[in-house]
Amino acid sequence: MAANKLFGGVEAGGTKFVCATGTGTDKLRVSVEIPTRRPESTLREVIDFFRSQEGGTERLAGAAIGSFGPLELNENASNYGHILKTTKPGWEGFDIRGELARALDVPVAIETDVNAAAIGEMNWGAARGLQHCLYVTVGTGIGVGAIVDGKILHGEHHPEMGHTFVPISPDETDAFEGICLYHKSCVEGLASGIAIVSRWGRKLIDIPKNHPAWHLEAQYLAKFLANLTFVLQPQRIIIGGGVMNETLLSMVRELLHSTIASYRPTLTAREAMNDYLVMPELGGRAGVLGAIAIAATARL
Amino acid sequence: MAANKLFGGVEAGGTKFVCATGTGTDKLRVSVEIPTRRPESTLREVIDFFRSQEGGTERLAGAAIGSFGPLELNENASNYGHILKTTKPGWEGFDIRGELARALDVPVAIETDVNAAAIGEMNWGAARGLQHCLYVTVGTGIGVGAIVDGKILHGEHHPEMGHTFVPISPDETDAFEGICLYHKSCVEGLASGIAIVSRWGRKLIDIPKNHPAWHLEAQYLAKFLANLTFVLQPQRIIIGGGVMNETLLSMVRELLHSTIASYRPTLTAREAMNDYLVMPELGGRAGVLGAIAIAATARL
Repeated sequence: MAANKLFGGVEAGGTKFVCATGTGTDKLRVSVEIPTRRPESTLREVIDFFRSQEGGTERLAGAAIGSFGPLELNENASNYGHILKTTKPGWEGFDIRGELARALDVPVAIETDVNAAAIGEMNWGAARGLQHCLYVTVGTGIGVGAIVDGKILHGEHHPEMGHTFVPISPDETDAFEGICLYHKSCVEGLASGIAIVSRWGRKLIDIPKNHPAWHLEAQYLAKFLANLTFVLQPQRIIIGGGVMNETLLSMVRELLHSTIASYRPTLTAREAMNDYLVMPELGGRAGVLGAIAIAATARL
Repeated sequence: MAANKLFGGVEAGGTKFVCATGTGTDKLRVSVEIPTRRPESTLREVIDFFRSQEGGTERLAGAAIGSFGPLELNENASNYGHILKTTKPGWEGFDIRGELARALDVPVAIETDVNAAAIGEMNWGAARGLQHCLYVTVGTGIGVGAIVDGKILHGEHHPEMGHTFVPISPDETDAFEGICLYHKSCVEGLASGIAIVSRWGRKLIDIPKNHPAWHLEAQYLAKFLANLTFVLQPQRIIIGGGVMNETLLSMVRELLHSTIASYRPTLTAREAMNDYLVMPELGGRAGVLGAIAIAATARL
C-alpha cells in the first residue's frame, strides 16, 4: 500500500460522527468527533476534516462509513447507500454515501455501524485471527455485526439482530411490556439502555447489584446470545456498549454457559466461556477503525 | 459430467435412511428406504443398494450423506464425520462418513440433513435461482438449513437453530413447560410434533382448527421465523415437515408479516409473504436429492 494513500473512516451515529484517517491497515490516526445535527451541516464538517488531513504527498484515496440504519446496501438498488426509515430529523432517505463520495471525489463504501465495528475488532482487536465472530453492542439500542468465513454477513438485507425476540423471564413481576416502537418486547425493547431507564428509572450501573434488574438483564442477554450461537456458531462473541460492565459480563457468561454448553463440544468447560464471550479491545474506536479497514480493502 | 459417473445420496434419519443415485444434477433416480436399526446393519443395506445400482459402464464416483446430528463437520477434527451425542442406540460416536467411504471406496461428503435439504431445494425446488434461503422442517423435531451467498452456512459448528428460544405466548393458559431434553422451552421443545402431542394428546391435524393449539403453534413459528429473518435476511423461507399444512402456513404468514413488514422494504405488502414463506417443492425427497447434488459438486 503506497505510503501517500490516506483512507478515511466515519462512524455515523445518532448523537455523534467519529472520523479518522489512516494510511492502511498499520498506521492509524484517530481523530475528531462531530455532533450529529442535520445531514448537510454534519457532512460539511466531515468533509472539512478529511480535507484538513491531506497535505504533502498524502491524498485521500477512499473512505468508508459505518452508519446507523437501516440502510440500503444492495448496490443494484436505486437508493444504494441511503438511510432508510429513521426518526432522526432530516436523515430519512438521505444519500449519505453518495453525498460524501461526490464531495470527496473518491470511492466511498458503506456498512452498518456494527458491521464496521466487527471488522475493526477482527483486524486489530478481540477477534484477531478468527473466521467467525459477532460484535454485539448493548447501549442506547442493541445491535450485532456478524463475520462468517471472514466476511460480513448479509442476506438480502443487512441483519437487524437487535429486533429478535427472547423469552420474557418467569422471574418478572412488573409486567414490563418493552419499549421498541415496532414490536415492544424484542431484545432491544427489553434490554437496551433506554429500556432499562424506562423500566427502572435509572441506568443499570446506578442500580444496586442485588436488585432484580441485574439478573433480568443478564437473562435477556444470555438467551439472546444463546440464540445467536445456535444460528451462527461463532468462535467468539465480543460484547460492548454503554450498558456492559464486568459484573454483568460474568452473570451473562454463567447463564449462557448453562444453556449452550451441551451443544458445542468446545464450550463444555465453564472456563471456555471466558474466551467465548469477551469485551471489545478497541472500545469506542472499533467502528471508525473498522471503517478505515473497509475503505482500505474494499474493491473500490 | 461424464455419463458413466453415478453419484449416491443418503438421507440418514432417525427412523429411516433414504438412498438414491443420480448421474449428476440432471438425471435422478430416487430409490429405496431402509429402516434405521443399529449402525452396522443399516449401513450394510445402504452399501448393498449402491452396489446394486452400478452396472454396464456406470460406476459410483462419489456419495454424500445428509444426516441427523449433531455431527462433527470440521475436516481437521480427528472425529470428522462422526455422529456426536445422540440417544439413538449405537449411533453416538459412529463414524458414519468414514465407514461408508471405506466400504464404497469413493469420496463421501457429509452434511446435516436440513442443510442437504436446503441444497436440494436450491438446486431443483422452491429456492431455484436464489442466493439466500432457509429450509425449515417442523416435524418430530425442528431443524433449519441455511444458504447464504449460495453456500451452506456454518460457523465453528453447524447451526442448531431448532434450539433457539422464542417468547412464550401471553395467550398461554396451560403452563406448558416444553419438552426439549436440554432446555425445555426452546422452539423445538414448544412447537415440534412431539411437543404438540405431549401437550394436547394428539397431532395438530387431529385437533379442531378453532382450538387454541393452532394459534399458539402459529405464534411460536412466526416468532421463530421473525428471529431467523432478522439474523439471516433470506430471500425466501421454505417450510415443511409433518406438522405443516396450508392452514397453518396461512396463519404463520399473517403473524410473520405483522412482525417483519416494517423492517424489509421488499416485504411491506402482505402478498409478498406468499412468495417469502412457501412449502417445499421436493417434499420428502429434498434431503436425498440435496445429498446427490453435494456429492456431484463437492470438491472431492
